Amino acid sequence: MRIPPIVVNFKAYSEAVGDNAVRLAKIAAEVAEEVGVKIGICPAHTDLYRVVKEVGDGDVVVFAQAVDAAEPGSRTGHVTPEMVAAAGADGTLLNHSERRMRLDDLKDVCRACMNEGLLTIVCASDSMAARAAGALQPHAVAVEPPELIGTGTPVSKADPEVVERSVEAVKEVSEDTAVLCGAGITDGSDVRAAIELGSDGVLVASGVVLADDPKEALLDLASGLE
Amino acid sequence: MRIPPIVVNFKAYSEAVGDNAVRLAKIAAEVAEEVGVKIGICPAHTDLYRVVKEVGDGDVVVFAQAVDAAEPGSRTGHVTPEMVAAAGADGTLLNHSERRMRLDDLKDVCRACMNEGLLTIVCASDSMAARAAGALQPHAVAVEPPELIGTGTPVSKADPEVVERSVEAVKEVSEDTAVLCGAGITDGSDVRAAIELGSDGVLVASGVVLADDPKEALLDLASGLE
Amino acid sequence: MRIPPIVVNFKAYSEAVGDNAVRLAKIAAEVAEEVGVKIGICPAHTDLYRVVKEVGDGDVVVFAQAVDAAEPGSRTGHVTPEMVAAAGADGTLLNHSERRMRLDDLKDVCRACMNEGLLTIVCASDSMAARAAGALQPHAVAVEPPELIGTGTPVSKADPEVVERSVEAVKEVSEDTAVLCGAGITDGSDVRAAIELGSDGVLVASGVVLADDPKEALLDLASGLE
Amino acid sequence: MRIPPIVVNFKAYSEAVGDNAVRLAKIAAEVAEEVGVKIGICPAHTDLYRVVKEVGDGDVVVFAQAVDAAEPGSRTGHVTPEMVAAAGADGTLLNHSERRMRLDDLKDVCRACMNEGLLTIVCASDSMAARAAGALQPHAVAVEPPELIGTGTPVSKADPEVVERSVEAVKEVSEDTAVLCGAGITDGSDVRAAIELGSDGVLVASGVVLADDPKEALLDLASGLE
Repeated sequence: MRIPPIVVNFKAYSEAVGDNAVRLAKIAAEVAEEVGVKIGICPAHTDLYRVVKEVGDGDVVVFAQAVDAAEPGSRTGHVTPEMVAAAGADGTLLNHSERRMRLDDLKDVCRACMNEGLLTIVCASDSMAARAAGALQPHAVAVEPPELIGTGTPVSKADPEVVERSVEAVKEVSEDTAVLCGAGITDGSDVRAAIELGSDGVLVASGVVLADDPKEALLDLASGLE
Repeated sequence: MRIPPIVVNFKAYSEAVGDNAVRLAKIAAEVAEEVGVKIGICPAHTDLYRVVKEVGDGDVVVFAQAVDAAEPGSRTGHVTPEMVAAAGADGTLLNHSERRMRLDDLKDVCRACMNEGLLTIVCASDSMAARAAGALQPHAVAVEPPELIGTGTPVSKADPEVVERSVEAVKEVSEDTAVLCGAGITDGSDVRAAIELGSDGVLVASGVVLADDPKEALLDLASGLE
Repeated sequence: MRIPPIVVNFKAYSEAVGDNAVRLAKIAAEVAEEVGVKIGICPAHTDLYRVVKEVGDGDVVVFAQAVDAAEPGSRTGHVTPEMVAAAGADGTLLNHSERRMRLDDLKDVCRACMNEGLLTIVCASDSMAARAAGALQPHAVAVEPPELIGTGTPVSKADPEVVERSVEAVKEVSEDTAVLCGAGITDGSDVRAAIELGSDGVLVASGVVLADDPKEALLDLASGLE
Repeated sequence: MRIPPIVVNFKAYSEAVGDNAVRLAKIAAEVAEEVGVKIGICPAHTDLYRVVKEVGDGDVVVFAQAVDAAEPGSRTGHVTPEMVAAAGADGTLLNHSERRMRLDDLKDVCRACMNEGLLTIVCASDSMAARAAGALQPHAVAVEPPELIGTGTPVSKADPEVVERSVEAVKEVSEDTAVLCGAGITDGSDVRAAIELGSDGVLVASGVVLADDPKEALLDLASGLE
């Protein structure tokens, strides 16, 4: 299984929790089928199971938003790779700027996810962090300058060099790792710019989750892949 | 809704994740019905929804194992009180020794849980921590000396004074807060001792989850309440 | 030794690090002597020793800005109560909003500081946190609503009720604990207002450290104590 | 300035805090002069200034045990690169297994230390972590399997492959980064083995700090460099 070119982080937005998570997941499934493109979605831990039940068999790839560096056993309140796999998810985001991890935990979790057959997308704030993240050889690195998150100003336009440098940095240390481009992505032209800068896709959140019409927003993003 | 006198923390034990969580939850429901006592269970975040679907309407009270001090919005990988409520849970453990919280986050989360109508059980390692936890006026404080967790040596026998002092400390600052007694509890006599020391019930984990026969283990614990 | 009525947190301001820390400490000593009032100062860990050497014998009380919940031994990069005492300091701030602690660590550190003979000032963001902090019976609780820190708008004027409620909350659980009032304090009238609301003194930072004339700023603050 | 081939972490051992830190530092200076080899020492934050005053001009290179990812300004209880430089230290350990850092903080701190002219030694638990640490291009990576720390069983004998693989992994991503080898190192033969496996030196702690005769212990270690 490959990393989808569009990954939507549901975050902790009320618009994407509980029944809303299922609603958004179904929209993603519709768009994925209509456009013929895999779409990744990242619901809350508490919604993983029900979202997988609803859309897990189609073109939607379900990711957790994070996984803890914790093995099964006497641990409380942690989400282990085993739990995420048991809920039927396909992979996980790691080290999002809103949930940074210690380097050693990140390493342990990448390894544990491999063992569980989970896809890993490690977030990084710039090309230096992307290089270190890439050195762990995850399936993808998502470059997201934190200062652009939620702004609507796409990284692919505001700081194209960070994308180019990150692609280069990641490939230097891990040829097979995909690079996603995140922060401020809202429409098809942002996606196109991201691809032209050498990335393999985008990581979005508010641009879809908070859109008046999430389906239209997703269709617009997908148009940038053509 | 009151705090049940027996609360079982499923932790991250493989024996209590995914399908196993549902199996254990059903056992708890059977025992609760047979004995006529409410039983609390604390499955993993990823299992909350499906466990509530299976046993949420009976005598089982479902708790999350933890909640993050995070409001709805642009946050990734956190579990908010809203998510736990959306999954149908009745409350949450907080500040377990395996998931300690910052004092200020604990305060914010206690307040947020009240607003969501969630029961709060705050764990504390000794009577001094119990006093501070009690000062936040949660529904319950669970006293668990970390050095006894998983040992099979019950706090109610190994260190009865810590239970007595904790009950006193909590009542001093918050009369209406219940006190649970945890760590090393495995059978009915441990429960009886805990109650005699002034606590309102017990918090258990491995004693039930890892028991050869969890149903028998729960029935034995419940016998201590008579 | 009592908690001084004016405590100045040097923070990580370049204006108060290294040689500047010594310069500011001497100013505090001059003012303390002139006005006949004890003044507390909180230099960086790396400056504690040299500041104590310069001003430790007079009317200045030297506090660390934080201490870790770590015992002597195989620990790296932590600052233990023993280290702070070995540097000659008299006490420490704890749980500042810029360095929040876990409840259990805070409890352990309060106890360890008592054993080392160090004064403890535990920061709290509001009256609910102040109540929990007070329950640990430190020498003082400093109430600092984080949203007012560095604003120049004094808590004693912006939100007098939080001060009154905090004083009440702390006294309810620990009669002998002093209450300081922080955030936005810049002049003598702020100090006077703080005292009139029932607090025992103030915790300031930028109002002194970043002042054009720190000596004048301290003299102005001290005038509010008359 | 180069990374010294022997670096002694004073940790939080009472035997190496306060006056004892100065005593040990002087011993290191004596040995460095006698043997004609630079020796690195890592005292507690609170001892940096006085240790530099005593031995800073000779063959001893003084490192902090850690630095926080914090810029100068409104921050409390943190140790910034600026503070460490102001105390006269030459560099810092980072990401020790007893003080792990978030990947992004580690990246920010490495960059900030370069700007302050501080040497950086980043610790790593195995070759996978060493590769990620090396990708940040610090002056050195110190490979220390946490399970061997303090055991007296040297990593260079217990797990020689982890040393070889780490050297290879680091050089792959950062040719100019030195590799130290830590955990369980106690005598000259351990040092010799470490060097033969391709590393540039050793990181030790209890082997020197807790030795009956620290001077003899250091001389023995240095004999392995011949």
